Amino acid sequence: MIEQQIIDRLTQIVGKENCSTVTADRICYSYDATQQQFLPDVVLHPASADEISKIMLLANEKFIPVFPRGAGSGFSGGSLPTRGGIVLSTERLDTILKIDEENLVATVEPGVVTEQFQQAVEKVGLFYPPDPASLKFSTLGGNVAECAGGPRCVKYGVTKDYIIGLEVVTPTGDIIKTGGPTMKGVVGYDLTKLLCGSEGTLGIITKIIIKLLPLPEAKQTMLVMFDSIDGAAQAVSAIIKGKIIPTTLEFMDGRTIDCVRQATDLDVPAAANAVLIIEVDGDREFLNKQVAKISAIIKPLGVVETRIATTPKESEALWQIRRSVSASLRKVNPDKFNEDICVPRSRVPEMIRRIDKISATYEIPIVNFGHAGDGNIHVNIMINKKVAGELEKAEKAIEEVFKGALELGGTMSGEHGVGIAKAPYIGLEITKQAAFYMKTIKKALDPNNILNPGKIFLDDKQTANH
Amino acid sequence: MIEQQIIDRLTQIVGKENCSTVTADRICYSYDATQQQFLPDVVLHPASADEISKIMLLANEKFIPVFPRGAGSGFSGGSLPTRGGIVLSTERLDTILKIDEENLVATVEPGVVTEQFQQAVEKVGLFYPPDPASLKFSTLGGNVAECAGGPRCVKYGVTKDYIIGLEVVTPTGDIIKTGGPTMKGVVGYDLTKLLCGSEGTLGIITKIIIKLLPLPEAKQTMLVMFDSIDGAAQAVSAIIKGKIIPTTLEFMDGRTIDCVRQATDLDVPAAANAVLIIEVDGDREFLNKQVAKISAIIKPLGVVETRIATTPKESEALWQIRRSVSASLRKVNPDKFNEDICVPRSRVPEMIRRIDKISATYEIPIVNFGHAGDGNIHVNIMINKKVAGELEKAEKAIEEVFKGALELGGTMSGEHGVGIAKAPYIGLEITKQAAFYMKTIKKALDPNNILNPGKIFLDDKQTANH
Repeated sequence: MIEQQIIDRLTQIVGKENCSTVTADRICYSYDATQQQFLPDVVLHPASADEISKIMLLANEKFIPVFPRGAGSGFSGGSLPTRGGIVLSTERLDTILKIDEENLVATVEPGVVTEQFQQAVEKVGLFYPPDPASLKFSTLGGNVAECAGGPRCVKYGVTKDYIIGLEVVTPTGDIIKTGGPTMKGVVGYDLTKLLCGSEGTLGIITKIIIKLLPLPEAKQTMLVMFDSIDGAAQAVSAIIKGKIIPTTLEFMDGRTIDCVRQATDLDVPAAANAVLIIEVDGDREFLNKQVAKISAIIKPLGVVETRIATTPKESEALWQIRRSVSASLRKVNPDKFNEDICVPRSRVPEMIRRIDKISATYEIPIVNFGHAGDGNIHVNIMINKKVAGELEKAEKAIEEVFKGALELGGTMSGEHGVGIAKAPYIGLEITKQAAFYMKTIKKALDPNNILNPGKIFLDDKQTANH
Repeated sequence: MIEQQIIDRLTQIVGKENCSTVTADRICYSYDATQQQFLPDVVLHPASADEISKIMLLANEKFIPVFPRGAGSGFSGGSLPTRGGIVLSTERLDTILKIDEENLVATVEPGVVTEQFQQAVEKVGLFYPPDPASLKFSTLGGNVAECAGGPRCVKYGVTKDYIIGLEVVTPTGDIIKTGGPTMKGVVGYDLTKLLCGSEGTLGIITKIIIKLLPLPEAKQTMLVMFDSIDGAAQAVSAIIKGKIIPTTLEFMDGRTIDCVRQATDLDVPAAANAVLIIEVDGDREFLNKQVAKISAIIKPLGVVETRIATTPKESEALWQIRRSVSASLRKVNPDKFNEDICVPRSRVPEMIRRIDKISATYEIPIVNFGHAGDGNIHVNIMINKKVAGELEKAEKAIEEVFKGALELGGTMSGEHGVGIAKAPYIGLEITKQAAFYMKTIKKALDPNNILNPGKIFLDDKQTANH
């Protein structure tokens, strides 16, 4: 526990109503989407970079760990207060400071909710593409810290591709600016991109400068059912080889479709063994041409049925199948490990085959769907933790899934990050030398190991296995 | 000078023919595009990451500075061997290792010449957009180290937007891989982007994994002459507000056009006071629509004349005016300082007016052209060094140009980097705290200050002025 005298100093910094040691509050900030739980000693809601700087100075003085937190929607435990100490919530920093329509640049605070920001820029005809599944509650600060992705990344890239500048409180309490509102800039190291995806270990984000695009004029959605996963995967490659980069190329494998069939009354033909949802956006006339071209390209690849939506309402209906997946999975088994490996696009079918084998070996249902366009597969390992031995089997299966992805030139995580969930496995992907380079940066910038300690890399003795 | 015994060990590493202390060779590697000259002690041409690793280990053992070098086409002195020691040329690492047409990814060695790579991928229908002016001789390794830009960046972004993985020899001699061939990846810190634009101070690039795009079907070029720079600048903003992001939006100011008129017999009407070259690319039919839309948007903004090219040959003719600029400038004055500030797009006219004032104050011709679409202005300060006082006036003018850009929310360098040319001014843009964060990274990763020392940041005593 933190001494009362330090709590008093923290209270002085953020104000009484923004510093809580009440158990109920601490519990509220003890978990994230991993469903793991760690109780912090105190929860702080600072209102400015200045207050955060003071908190960091005090934390360094007293060696108290600080865990920055957006909405706690992360899937890898990045915001969990694993060592007690301070949870530093950015919820009060929730202002969209500026939307510069002339320069297509916005400046926001980190606590702004992703979807609210998207809606605000769309109102003035602009577009912020990154669309993590959690966008209704996730914050932009968390999105930046984890480098969130989403379905639209095939065409538009991930969060970091839109972040051109930051204001950050460093682990030792300095307030610095990185990058800026210009489209180019090469003065000094690109700290902006280093901080994107650094999972809150190298600085606390207090302002974000975001590059925007003009909002595409229109969108069309196709839902295509294939008789095999290979047909769907070939379709992905063929579309891109055909020089079309769709906005979205989502896939669901046979098991996923089975789940949907069992759990819902949505119309999914029996012959369908894989589904692609393909979206294109841009000039209205040009879209018709693109959809026709896509239809022609995929026709020989075992198409069972194609549905095309041209209005937002029709599109929403097509997405129903995809959106029903998460709820449907719960019928398979109560506990889910949601991994998010990414392989080169062309290796997706091979990866799915490997996962099927792993599933058979360990006798655990594994359900795959995700962003086929960029090879990012959400691998859902479904178990019942209450059944003896299932958890251990799941852990072995996860390790084999990671190894498979790496053997195919991929990565353990496309968009969820490492946090604590993947930290035990990081040695599979990153060599000791590369890890040393990363840890050297962390140690130099955070000599007291105050900021989000124990994330990405376990303590040295714990990682010795890999 | 380096002791013979060390030269012998270096010779053992790279082979006799790839280690030279001959004066003629050393002179060849003593300069870059800044026209400054520093003689290295020895020039090495290693053939592999392994050899480079051994060189770095030896350099650390003996405290010899190592200056990595691509083609030496940089404008800020990034590759200059300012402290003697070793020039490490990557010229022999010149193989395109793989072009993966299915995944739109290439792997290359750093010594591959930019244009040769572009041509190789275009042959198979793919596209590598970054196009620095030096692309006929610059290398991809140098492009990555400096994060090169170019005219096409308005639509397509800069070098770092295409670099998804690297193999790097660290300052202390480890060989590490960063990123990989997947479109997404968030395992550990994004060292790839940190190394892009780090000017060879954090590692020596030995392999580059590059994301490619499908080659656009067609291109159209418009050359538009305006009666004022304000009209041209408003055109830039209006086009982008009209939801068109052209491939290229190059501008030339009145003085630039005067130079071209005086030095060439190209047809430039007397009423033209600013020129925009606008290129759009994509689907052939759609381009006609875009060009018509652009013509309508810019019509009320003081258009003197519009020329449209639809074939590569016609396009080449339009680009003649832009390509003749550099040679034309030499007629103004023999010596040129080529700066590359970048401001938010909408501030370009204000920046040009400020530069005109600075030009008047110091009685030095300043000629501006560049990439208006992303606010990146090439500011050419033309003097005759032989005239007493001109150099001093130029230096003061440069500092004022930088200050002006920063006041307008811009940066001192959009694409050329800091090197030694802008190092004395870096304190204008980067606060002490941000510089401390950057230097902390450098010091931790290169404790002996072996790799490209003295670049970006001057020694501490020298920077005290700012």
